[in-house]
Formats: sequence, C-alpha cells, structure tokens
Amino acid sequence: MATRTSPHAAPERPERGPRRRLSVDERREQLISVALDLFSRRSPDEVSIDDIATAAGASRPLVYHYFPGKQSLYEAALRRAADELAGRFHEPPDGPLSERLHRVMGRYLDFVDGHGPGFAALLRGGSVSASPWTNAVIDEVRRAAHDQILSHLAIDDPGPRLRLTIRAWIANAEITALEWLEDRSIPREELQLRLVQEFVAALTVTVSLDPSLLPAFRGFLAEETPDGPTGRLAAQLNALFADPGLGTTVGRLASGTVW
Amino acid sequence: MATRTSPHAAPERPERGPRRRLSVDERREQLISVALDLFSRRSPDEVSIDDIATAAGASRPLVYHYFPGKQSLYEAALRRAADELAGRFHEPPDGPLSERLHRVMGRYLDFVDGHGPGFAALLRGGSVSASPWTNAVIDEVRRAAHDQILSHLAIDDPGPRLRLTIRAWIANAEITALEWLEDRSIPREELQLRLVQEFVAALTVTVSLDPSLLPAFRGFLAEETPDGPTGRLAAQLNALFADPGLGTTVGRLASGTVW
Repeated sequence: MATRTSPHAAPERPERGPRRRLSVDERREQLISVALDLFSRRSPDEVSIDDIATAAGASRPLVYHYFPGKQSLYEAALRRAADELAGRFHEPPDGPLSERLHRVMGRYLDFVDGHGPGFAALLRGGSVSASPWTNAVIDEVRRAAHDQILSHLAIDDPGPRLRLTIRAWIANAEITALEWLEDRSIPREELQLRLVQEFVAALTVTVSLDPSLLPAFRGFLAEETPDGPTGRLAAQLNALFADPGLGTTVGRLASGTVW
Repeated sequence: MATRTSPHAAPERPERGPRRRLSVDERREQLISVALDLFSRRSPDEVSIDDIATAAGASRPLVYHYFPGKQSLYEAALRRAADELAGRFHEPPDGPLSERLHRVMGRYLDFVDGHGPGFAALLRGGSVSASPWTNAVIDEVRRAAHDQILSHLAIDDPGPRLRLTIRAWIANAEITALEWLEDRSIPREELQLRLVQEFVAALTVTVSLDPSLLPAFRGFLAEETPDGPTGRLAAQLNALFADPGLGTTVGRLASGTVW
C-alpha cells in the first residue's frame, strides 16, 4: 500500500530549467486534467491519489493540498468532462436537422472513444465513486442534450410524448456507446448514422400519435435531403417494402382489410 | 436514532391465539416479503431494520438473526423482485408477436406500478444500497427480457445489430416506466401500446440495415393483424403520410430525386 513516504511524496520544489512554477489555479487545473485523463482510461476504482500525483509530477501532499481526497478529484474531473460533453452538443442551427444531429453524434462518439473506461464505469454505476452528486451530473448532461434537440426542432411546447421520445433516444445513445466500447463489430460510421435514423424513426412514430407536432415535423422534413440520414432511411424502408411479400403485408395491415 | 431498546425490540414470543409460530423458512420468507413491500414503497435509504421488524411483527434481534443487516435484506428482496419481474416476461409463443409483447408490457407496467419508488430508486442509482451486485441483478433481468424477445422472434443468430436494437428498446421501456412514475399525463394504455409500436419501428429500421433478418421479419409481419399494435402503427403512419405535403416530401427523399 502506498504511504506518505512513497517515492512520489517528494516535497514540491520550484521547477528547474526554463519551466516556471505553476500558479495555484494552473496547478489545480493541471491536477484535474491529469485526473480526468486517468479516470477516463480506467475505472475510478482503479485510480489512486498516488497515480494522479505521479502522473502530474506532483507530491501526494501537494494533491491533498488542493483536493481533500480522491472523491473530490473525481468530482472535479467529472464536472469538467460533463461540461466538455455538453459543449459538444452545441451545433449551429443551419442545414438539415438530421445532418446537424449526425455531426453531433460524431463528436459524441469521439468523446466516448476518448473517455471509454471512465464513461462506461460512470454509466454502468456500481463504482465506489457513484453518488447522488455524480447521478445529478449525468442527468444534467442528459438534460442539456434534450434541450439542444428541442431547440433544433424549434418546438416551444413539446408535450410529454415528444419529451419521452427524446429521453428514450438519449438512453439509446448511451446504450449504443456502451456496447460500442465493448464490441466494435458494428463500424463507428454505421452507429453514427443509425442513431440519427433511429431518432427520425422514433420522431415519426411520435408525430403519428401527437398531431400537435405536425407543423414542426413538416418543417423538419422539408429541409431534409435525399442523401442525408433521413433520405437514406426513407430509401432503405422503400427498398425493404419493395419486397413483394412485405409490401403486401404492410398494405393489408395499414388499410385495415384482411387478405 | 433507533436503538436496541426501541419499542419494536420486544423479544420474540410464541404467537397467541390460533396462529402458529412460523418455521425458520417461513419466517425468512415473511421477512423478505415485508422488506420487499417496504423497499417497493419507499427508497431503500428511507427504510430501516426497525421499520421492517415493526411491519413483520418481529423483534429487531430476530431480524438480525436471519439477516446480518439492511443491505442483506435489501439484496434478498431485490432477488425476489427480479425473479418475479423476469417471470412476467414469459409468454406462450402463440398469436401475433406484437400482441404477445403488448401483454408482456401490461404485466411489466403492473410490476412498475406495484414497486414504484423502489423501482425508481434502483434504476436511478445513487442509493446507498446500489452495489456491483445490485447492478448485476438489474443486468440479469435485462438479459432475461432480451432473450425472451429473441426467442419469440425465433432468430437463432441475431447478430450485433438486432441485439443492440433490443437492448436500446429495453432501456426505452425503463425510461418510459421511470417517467410514468413521475408524471402520469400519458395514459398507461397509450404507453403500453407505444412501447410495442416503438419496438416494431426499431425492428423495421434494423431489418432495413441488416438483410439477414428479413426471413424472420417476414414471418413476424405475416402473423400481425390490422387491429393489433403493428397494424395500428401501419395505419397511423399511413394517415400521417396521407398529408399531401409530407407524402410528397418523403417520396422525394426516398426516390432520391429533388423536386
């Protein structure tokens, strides 16, 4: 077990050479960056204060001077990761909506890839670092994603049905990311496209149940292009139901007459 | 703070009147039932061993005789709830698949309704009772749901795409249940139908991306009826795209030609 007399516990001293000593704020930010890097690459249970001190080139007492313990450093790192992820949801309101979402999904999968083990440990729960606070931070990121989607859809009063659709789709994005971290057999580009197409499909089903969403849905579809995610989904479904057996079956189902 | 001299801590004595003393197994089962009832109606953090002893008509030492502490009683209660929920997924392989799933969803929402606060605390995480073990139990129930769906679809080798679709849909069912517990503005019957229709929609998108699923999908659709969940979804979407603007837009998207 590491103790305060471990080799990493050398007292802090001014940096030699041209590097200057870090200011208090800089040192704090550096420790958070180093911690976030370690907490991203391993489960939080597998990262110690000594690991962070070593990686930061700092002494263990110095780390404790800035943070009372591992939980506090974990929370600071999670705070930064959450802000970074929420920032990736921002997308200019230009061009077809499915293409905006496709770009956001690209940045989301980049983030997941860069923070894999920590992302998985956090979302799977059960870590010693899990707490009501960490859950609140996760929910805050989900809410940021939810609000971004609503703002792009330009719907002021979405109602409970669309809200539920968006929340369920965000859970889908989380599950997809977790599965991808464990099994890379589906190509990343396909997952990125698939998430967008699943959103469009879920939105379509929701609109078919809630006519108040129809004007926004019309506006959404009108800007889509044939080679974007929505157009490709429409073409995929068209091709699927070109299968004579399937087309007839769905026609029979939709028209309400039994063949 | 409750102590061993609290009013509930009376030593156990034989039941008076016609009721006989419980056997060891019966007492254990009774304590689990009482604990499950309390853990269902409140967050686990708000249930004490004293509460369980009082509700069971047992002394605090007697409860400790059977269970070393609250965590152990919580785990026994969760084990029973998980087995009960997994049992509700069993459905005879008869009739249209969407109607089987619709019946299962009815039993699922019954379960959620009967164990609301405990279900929410468990799935939202962050409770003091959360642990790798409780997470493993939750995952076991998810796996049971996943395997039931695959067995009804009669697909031996589903591949990663369909597996992901099913996992994401199970997450959707969990989110839907959690939202429903907080906000009952969407009627229960609508949520039950909606979950099934969302499964059918997600399955359709997956099949459009993975032709190996086409034979099973044909078999699935052939048994569906116009007044079942799939038929109603087809009719809803038909009505949606009967809107001339929408129909034209989707036609343009699907055919790959710009109007």
